[in-house]
Amino acid sequence: MNDHPVAVKAILFDVFGTVVDWRGSVIRELTDLGERQGIAADWGAFADRWRAGYHGGMRSVFDRQRRWLKADRMHYERLQKLAPEFGLGSLSAEDLEQLNRVWHRLAPWPGAREGLGRLKQNYTIGTLSNGDTALLVNMARNADLPWDVILGAEDFKSYKPDPAVYLGAVERLGHQPHEVMMAAAHLDDLQHAKECGLRTAFIVRPDEFGDGSAKPDLVAVEPVDVEASDFVDLAAKMGA
Amino acid sequence: MNDHPVAVKAILFDVFGTVVDWRGSVIRELTDLGERQGIAADWGAFADRWRAGYHGGMRSVFDRQRRWLKADRMHYERLQKLAPEFGLGSLSAEDLEQLNRVWHRLAPWPGAREGLGRLKQNYTIGTLSNGDTALLVNMARNADLPWDVILGAEDFKSYKPDPAVYLGAVERLGHQPHEVMMAAAHLDDLQHAKECGLRTAFIVRPDEFGDGSAKPDLVAVEPVDVEASDFVDLAAKMGA
Repeated sequence: MNDHPVAVKAILFDVFGTVVDWRGSVIRELTDLGERQGIAADWGAFADRWRAGYHGGMRSVFDRQRRWLKADRMHYERLQKLAPEFGLGSLSAEDLEQLNRVWHRLAPWPGAREGLGRLKQNYTIGTLSNGDTALLVNMARNADLPWDVILGAEDFKSYKPDPAVYLGAVERLGHQPHEVMMAAAHLDDLQHAKECGLRTAFIVRPDEFGDGSAKPDLVAVEPVDVEASDFVDLAAKMGA
Repeated sequence: MNDHPVAVKAILFDVFGTVVDWRGSVIRELTDLGERQGIAADWGAFADRWRAGYHGGMRSVFDRQRRWLKADRMHYERLQKLAPEFGLGSLSAEDLEQLNRVWHRLAPWPGAREGLGRLKQNYTIGTLSNGDTALLVNMARNADLPWDVILGAEDFKSYKPDPAVYLGAVERLGHQPHEVMMAAAHLDDLQHAKECGLRTAFIVRPDEFGDGSAKPDLVAVEPVDVEASDFVDLAAKMGA
């Protein structure tokens, strides 16, 4: 915990996993869809491989194999491959499009909305996500997340952890890096933000990966400015 | 009025003059400042010339004399010139900086907040302003404007009426041009939006220019999709 949290003017939030429970939300929609279609499958594995496609898509852009891509597009490409493998090969393009938008409908973690509402009283609050703008806007409308500003990969045509994303967001807010705090459940995201001069808030989300093979970050191995169990706890620790 | 307002998914708003009463707000702050300093001056003329500096600043970018500039910077440069002419030459750099941020504190027109709140129930609502992101975010926080998304010149490193701004905003929202409506008090803004394929809403703001020499648009000379007397009227006409 730093000594002067009041010097922070804005808090930017990683979204997938930090604000919303992507895995639980995706599994719920797939389970419902499977029941309607009379199909049973390992929907947790589907969700994990779908998510992995997003990381793979960003990597192909970093490696300059492709130009910048919206998350929506990466999700759709992976979905087209995964659906037949999991017995959903008969879905129409329209059905797939509708399913792909589950990423616009992800549910927030408990306390996220309340914590953001409190933080917004004292700080500018915004996203800083690799998701595209439309996805983040639709998610906020659907989940009633009271962002002051939606910032993300699409603003800078790059992805975290490119410093251009962290520093670009700071510049867009008209602040200095030390006046902006990055809040995330992922220590690598925080480490990169810290290297750009931002403050850091680590939110522990032990359930992000459920029973999947990926493991959540539970302990800050490098110092962070604030560590919180959820957004309500973060608000309290930030004096909001 | 078009026959299918329901097909509109998002409404983007011009800000200065359409959402907020820039002239009245600037005059009020200058008057207060003048009283504290014991200075009387034609603050309406100050406001008008300050605003003209913003237009001149954008023009210098269009003419490629300068690279893209934040509105904040253009306002500051003009303020440095104007302050001595109006007896405010003794203001410190810090005072000027504080005064310059009046553009972040502009007051909304009556009904603006209520109308936006209603429209937000049915439509994605956002800014599409030549103001920079920080200015628009701070204004929204100060005036409690419930935007879903802040879009503007800084997203596209150009200014309206460059089609790149209108079409860039449509693309960022993941929509088609005809699914997005531009709302403005200025017919030239609407005409350029229309040429890009957007729908148009004309909001009549007869008092924007007060007793200054500029004249408001009062009658739509070219057809618009919706014409409204304020944002509450716009919400009613858009079925929100």
